[in-house]
Amino acid sequence: MVIIDGKRVAGELKEQIRAEVDSRVSRGLKRPHLAAVLVGADGGSETYVSNKVKDCHDVGCESTLIRLAETASQEELLSVVHSLNGDDSVDGFIVQLPLPGHIQENAVIEAIDPTKDVDGFHPVNLGKMILGLPCFLPATPAGILKLLEYYDIETSGRHCVVIGRSNIVGTPLSILLSRKAAPGNCTVTLCHSYTKNLHELTLQADILVTALGKPGFLKGSMVKNGVVVIDVGTTRIPSETSKSGWKLYGDVSFDEVASKCSYITPVPGGVGPMTRIGLLLNTLQASTVKSP
Amino acid sequence: MVIIDGKRVAGELKEQIRAEVDSRVSRGLKRPHLAAVLVGADGGSETYVSNKVKDCHDVGCESTLIRLAETASQEELLSVVHSLNGDDSVDGFIVQLPLPGHIQENAVIEAIDPTKDVDGFHPVNLGKMILGLPCFLPATPAGILKLLEYYDIETSGRHCVVIGRSNIVGTPLSILLSRKAAPGNCTVTLCHSYTKNLHELTLQADILVTALGKPGFLKGSMVKNGVVVIDVGTTRIPSETSKSGWKLYGDVSFDEVASKCSYITPVPGGVGPMTRIGLLLNTLQASTVKSP
Repeated sequence: MVIIDGKRVAGELKEQIRAEVDSRVSRGLKRPHLAAVLVGADGGSETYVSNKVKDCHDVGCESTLIRLAETASQEELLSVVHSLNGDDSVDGFIVQLPLPGHIQENAVIEAIDPTKDVDGFHPVNLGKMILGLPCFLPATPAGILKLLEYYDIETSGRHCVVIGRSNIVGTPLSILLSRKAAPGNCTVTLCHSYTKNLHELTLQADILVTALGKPGFLKGSMVKNGVVVIDVGTTRIPSETSKSGWKLYGDVSFDEVASKCSYITPVPGGVGPMTRIGLLLNTLQASTVKSP
Repeated sequence: MVIIDGKRVAGELKEQIRAEVDSRVSRGLKRPHLAAVLVGADGGSETYVSNKVKDCHDVGCESTLIRLAETASQEELLSVVHSLNGDDSVDGFIVQLPLPGHIQENAVIEAIDPTKDVDGFHPVNLGKMILGLPCFLPATPAGILKLLEYYDIETSGRHCVVIGRSNIVGTPLSILLSRKAAPGNCTVTLCHSYTKNLHELTLQADILVTALGKPGFLKGSMVKNGVVVIDVGTTRIPSETSKSGWKLYGDVSFDEVASKCSYITPVPGGVGPMTRIGLLLNTLQASTVKSP
């Protein structure tokens, strides 16, 4: 059983990205520039965005953080989006989700110039993903593909069961893994809250992806021997022993599942760091080609 | 066992569409107008396009058929597309696929104004489909959803196995059936040429969709009792007893499979007529709302 070390892989990829940025700058090319828009002050969002800014710094990318009050109107946010669309110094930008309830997320995402949509959430990028055309991939699915590649895990012809059909993880990952590509060519089963007899399906999985946000949901009795488990769950649970005041839990009951796996990602240190790499790779791509 | 009568359902829906068109015209509104572009003279494409034109006539829509020679260049075709994009009299249009080998299909599809893309093949429409936003759905998946609705076939929580991952049938249908919607909320398994032990999966299907183009591929031994079978296959096989010189075959060995089914679509007369309805519904929608 191999515990997939997302932190290490992310570290190596970050070194490669930094080398590429350095090389570009030394050739007189523009330093890639990511902007992030944060509305309000949700604890999780604060952490995610400050990590993204830190990552940019680590690899030599420029970054700009734009903060709006929790009470900012949709019009104010759209005005910031339009301004970033038109700002040639910014190669790509993200609007951190979730947004406050009075703002329509789809309206905001659709307003982003698809060639700057480094989160890969715009319909054009999702549609191109289906068609196998060049596009920005959503960061978490892209990070998972990188992990599978790094560990040389065969996907072709294997049965991948994905639990969770979100627009940013489960659904795009299920599409990517079923495409004629490498990694890809999986038989993919997409499960969700309406799925009956879930364990009958998870027991068939060669590759099992959990993206539910239910700590410890996946038990040892639900997987077969030799399975590859990718745990996308990240639930924060208050903890007195942690200096941050909380601990991060995945969707997998790690100890009982790990003993049956060929490969498994831990939480933290598995998929999480790779998601951050997905964004950096998209930023690099945005800075290279203006039309994805 | 019920043989799903796609021809009858399509006929009823056509009557409804005609009534809607009549009502609009009597209120002084514009008669919906579909244009179709046909490059070359492939026998199948000729038939499909002339059926589409006939359907328009049947429901009172205006139609225009634009023919280009097999040798037309990509530039000539793109010029026709741009002209249709800018023609306010045309509500929606299609470019019949497949195109001759010297033309890049994706370049042509991406050139179509998404608000006139009544085939639903443009990346924007596919992306909006993933997100559950208003869009033009590809005609065949849309037609299949209509059949499931018409026969009141429960999809929620049922396991749907789709064989074939094409961009126009298998992949979009798998996405639509897994969405939180009605019809929808299926657990969906997408199978294809790389799938191993296919029969182990098909035997689990509550709803089984075949979209391979391999006549008689699905045998009775591959399905469980009570399954719903949707046969999207349409392969033409030369026949001396048919006045057209050929007969249409589905992917299902009908006689041996039908006896185990709760519902099954025949070929011809199942999904085919509904695909044509999908296009009419999109044309109506294009004529109603200019922005999908």
